[in-house]
Amino acid sequence: MRLNRLKRLLVGKPLPTAQARHERLGKASGLAIFASDPLSSNAYATEEILHVLILAGAAAMVYSLPIAAAIAALILIVISSYRQTIRAYPRGGGAYIVSKDNLGVFPSLVAGAALLTDYVLTVAVSVAAGIAALTSAAPALAPYRVVLCLAAVIGITVANLRGVRESGRVFATPTYLFVLSILGMVGYGLLGLALGWWPEAAPESPPPVLEGVGLFLILRAFAAGCTALTGIEAVSDGVPAFRPPEAHNARVVMGWLGAMTVSMFLGITYLAADLGVAPTAGETVVSQIARRVFGGGFFYYEIQVVTMLILLLAANTAFADFPRLSFFMARDRFMPRQFRSEGDRLVFSNGILILTGLAIVLLVAFHGDTHALLPLYAVGVFISFTLSQSGMVRRWLRLREEGWWWRVAFSAVGAAATALVMVTLAVTKFADGAWIVVTLIPTLVGMFLAIRRHYDRVALQLSLEDFEPPPAITHTVLVLVGDLHRGVVWALQYARSLSPAARAVYVDTERERTRRLEDRWRKWGVDVPLVVLDSPYRSLLGPLLGYIDHLQRQGGPDHFITIVLPEFIPARWWQHVLHNQTALLIKGALLFRRNIVVADVPYHLKH
Amino acid sequence: MRLNRLKRLLVGKPLPTAQARHERLGKASGLAIFASDPLSSNAYATEEILHVLILAGAAAMVYSLPIAAAIAALILIVISSYRQTIRAYPRGGGAYIVSKDNLGVFPSLVAGAALLTDYVLTVAVSVAAGIAALTSAAPALAPYRVVLCLAAVIGITVANLRGVRESGRVFATPTYLFVLSILGMVGYGLLGLALGWWPEAAPESPPPVLEGVGLFLILRAFAAGCTALTGIEAVSDGVPAFRPPEAHNARVVMGWLGAMTVSMFLGITYLAADLGVAPTAGETVVSQIARRVFGGGFFYYEIQVVTMLILLLAANTAFADFPRLSFFMARDRFMPRQFRSEGDRLVFSNGILILTGLAIVLLVAFHGDTHALLPLYAVGVFISFTLSQSGMVRRWLRLREEGWWWRVAFSAVGAAATALVMVTLAVTKFADGAWIVVTLIPTLVGMFLAIRRHYDRVALQLSLEDFEPPPAITHTVLVLVGDLHRGVVWALQYARSLSPAARAVYVDTERERTRRLEDRWRKWGVDVPLVVLDSPYRSLLGPLLGYIDHLQRQGGPDHFITIVLPEFIPARWWQHVLHNQTALLIKGALLFRRNIVVADVPYHLKH
Repeated sequence: MRLNRLKRLLVGKPLPTAQARHERLGKASGLAIFASDPLSSNAYATEEILHVLILAGAAAMVYSLPIAAAIAALILIVISSYRQTIRAYPRGGGAYIVSKDNLGVFPSLVAGAALLTDYVLTVAVSVAAGIAALTSAAPALAPYRVVLCLAAVIGITVANLRGVRESGRVFATPTYLFVLSILGMVGYGLLGLALGWWPEAAPESPPPVLEGVGLFLILRAFAAGCTALTGIEAVSDGVPAFRPPEAHNARVVMGWLGAMTVSMFLGITYLAADLGVAPTAGETVVSQIARRVFGGGFFYYEIQVVTMLILLLAANTAFADFPRLSFFMARDRFMPRQFRSEGDRLVFSNGILILTGLAIVLLVAFHGDTHALLPLYAVGVFISFTLSQSGMVRRWLRLREEGWWWRVAFSAVGAAATALVMVTLAVTKFADGAWIVVTLIPTLVGMFLAIRRHYDRVALQLSLEDFEPPPAITHTVLVLVGDLHRGVVWALQYARSLSPAARAVYVDTERERTRRLEDRWRKWGVDVPLVVLDSPYRSLLGPLLGYIDHLQRQGGPDHFITIVLPEFIPARWWQHVLHNQTALLIKGALLFRRNIVVADVPYHLKH
Repeated sequence: MRLNRLKRLLVGKPLPTAQARHERLGKASGLAIFASDPLSSNAYATEEILHVLILAGAAAMVYSLPIAAAIAALILIVISSYRQTIRAYPRGGGAYIVSKDNLGVFPSLVAGAALLTDYVLTVAVSVAAGIAALTSAAPALAPYRVVLCLAAVIGITVANLRGVRESGRVFATPTYLFVLSILGMVGYGLLGLALGWWPEAAPESPPPVLEGVGLFLILRAFAAGCTALTGIEAVSDGVPAFRPPEAHNARVVMGWLGAMTVSMFLGITYLAADLGVAPTAGETVVSQIARRVFGGGFFYYEIQVVTMLILLLAANTAFADFPRLSFFMARDRFMPRQFRSEGDRLVFSNGILILTGLAIVLLVAFHGDTHALLPLYAVGVFISFTLSQSGMVRRWLRLREEGWWWRVAFSAVGAAATALVMVTLAVTKFADGAWIVVTLIPTLVGMFLAIRRHYDRVALQLSLEDFEPPPAITHTVLVLVGDLHRGVVWALQYARSLSPAARAVYVDTERERTRRLEDRWRKWGVDVPLVVLDSPYRSLLGPLLGYIDHLQRQGGPDHFITIVLPEFIPARWWQHVLHNQTALLIKGALLFRRNIVVADVPYHLKH
């Protein structure tokens, strides 16, 4: 009861099913929920590129601009491809569903495993980066990084257990503030550069030639920057969460987010290059830019706070996606059925809680360090991009709708580009942590297949096709007694009402006691016959199981034995400790036996 | 099954009740079991005296001899008193029983609490001192002290779970070796001193006058040395474990042990004083004496090994006493009834396991340090001595048997002496740890009284005196269904066999599913009517509990509702995770309700 009140306080009162339809998102709040993840990647994507390039010296950092341009092009390709997917799958077209529809079961499971892994990483990475934005502005908090990360995850969890509508309302403001602030910073920064308010980084040395930098380094930097694409698929997964017309609204949101993310990403990268900002351990690149542009005043702190908030919002996105994908996969019986049931606030509570648990494990294991977590992150995203777009190619080729040839070309380019990036990521980041994901995904696929096989077998065994119900069940009722008191008499009466042939069974561990019991039985046994079983080793279970076996051999396959257990229930919980837990032991031993029903008859004590 | 095999490997095969009588101890093995505790105290008693005296300077250590003589006299008084107790209580006369018999319930509970506390301390102190004997000889093992202590406790536990006879056989040799070795060391040491083989400690300064040393210091040293008396009561507790004639054998053993312990204690103390041995941190006093006398050769190591073994034996004594006293107190309903049941090896397994757990807690909390544990130890022993001997005084005065007047005198002297020591101990060692015991004992007494009150109330409520059994029980059988499959059909058949009026109940959480279920019910419902309950909040329990309440209001106080739960049992344990734990939830919610019987009908899956 007290637990229940705590739950209500945290997650609110239960919602009736009839309210389900109203919990939908408009375009503006849909963008806040689903676009926050790709937008927030701008908080770390540029930094990751610079982090790699600086290995070849400060001069190599000029390559950040062409790399960013290539990534921006990739973003636009992927976004366009997904807008087509949304049109084709208005009821939700994540990589899992698209792959299942067009490529078959096995690729869809690979996509599912990749996405689930990535959702967990979205939470871990975004929260870690959000706390990094905070500790950049307030270095005094740096030692409490992991604790702050966990507090943030738990806060988001509670918000999500309350339901998705409230999340949209609470989180809309910071998303738009983030976009405006970053674009404002970029604009003000560019203006300042043009007017010479702050010194441009002097090109001390000529940029090294490409051979000097090394193609592998450029590829690694490119791969690192591809974290800018994480989360783009969220909108297409979540189409049914939009207000009708769902597909239209989702496509509009997808377009907006493409425009926003590309301009922010290019702007930040350009400013970083022109201001000569290099990544350092204690402060993020965005923080350094903001400090240079705004000089550490109000706007600087505003950028940091808003960056932190958008990153927490990004983590929040995964709390919509992970349970939803789990639901789809559980509906297809590849995941445990518990993920199918909505809680009393119309959210998939089990998915939310599992996601929270896994994210906490990651944050603790990697000490809440963004750089350590990022190599695990993007591989899964690009596996799902590749599968999703390959699936769309197959679809256009199959359906041959109007304009199919340019759609095929578009999706094929997207699939090829993302496949290339996927391989690049897996190779260049393998040793840094991508190996974890590369080995985890096949393991998960194996698990999905094992779960499905189990459910199929259960369904087959429980199926009513060709099932002949047993003609009539015969049964024996046994009351197991250790003593004779009010509770036992009560249970004997109950057993007699089930079957006039009910018997009581007593295991003799001490001759003396047995004789006393038999004496009292004559007076209080309410005419139920008493069977005494011998127990030379003082074991209760051995003789009892032997007797039951004997009865079952006599009774045949349609014979049930009901074991009635008289149990008195103490008035207070701690008093249970003071009584033999024999009933529990017996229930445990009989649970796995065929055609045995254990029935507790409670007798309640008053004090 | 696998667990059971492990248990058999550790504790041996079950023994039939008929073997109980043969598990008895002769005089020689009885001494090994029960006398090992008081004998082993010699390993640390002298050291504790010196430990206090050295605070007043090395010269003060000459007072160890008169103090030891006073303690030896006390030992003889207590032993004589207990030999009388054994004659009066041939069926076991520990302080608990003697106090209960002669002083009343409350003093007996105080004695019981004191003894139980002390048995736990016997294990902790003896094991810690035993490992100290080991690390004195092999200082390299010192860092692993706590781990070695725990390993020893667990080893002794396993030996005891196998049964007391085997313990006697395994442990007899080391006891006698210890007595012989220590007496041999004392004899050889005295011979050497007499012949001038090793230099006597030069009396550098004249012994300080008593005022200089301080009466309080002398009292503290005396109190510290009184640990030599710990364990003396064990024989009288364990009289029934002896072969007949039990009392005679026990009294003989008591006499032997008095002679042995006094001569060893005086011998060690004399040698320590004459050789000028002072306590140090890394090596015990006995180890130092043995090293001086035998020069670190074979005999030195033999003394250390045998000392360790006798101390482990002493710990073992508590494994006979603690469960036995728990049994007595549980029989009187002051302790949980679980302590009354013998395991299948004819030992009180519950008592043994509780003792092990508590001793481990103490050893870990005090880092296995003998000196830290000893201040807690002796207070409880002397409380029980005092109560036991006061009880005997009352008894002689009441019965006035032949020679009662000298028996009274004897017991009264014993009671007065031990009472005095008890107060001295509590005062001088209070701050060092005795406060724990002084506050724990009243808490335990309170617990015993609460337990007894609970059992009395339960007995009253369950008593059949003046009980009118309910004339006839009426009942309703409800099958709770969430679906319709073979397992459910099986349960429906079962329910029909219990009552032709059985009904099925389904909670509607999704209109669509309900309609499908109703369709299939027509074909497969084996004519059991289906009741559909509405659930606007998708909760299973709410509507179900409401319906049950409704039925119970209609049925009256003698109406039972049997809830039949169809449950399919997966073939492997991990597969349980893949199914809703609804049945468990429902059982939990209904467990505390009156007149409700929950009956699981299992349907076993094959794979």
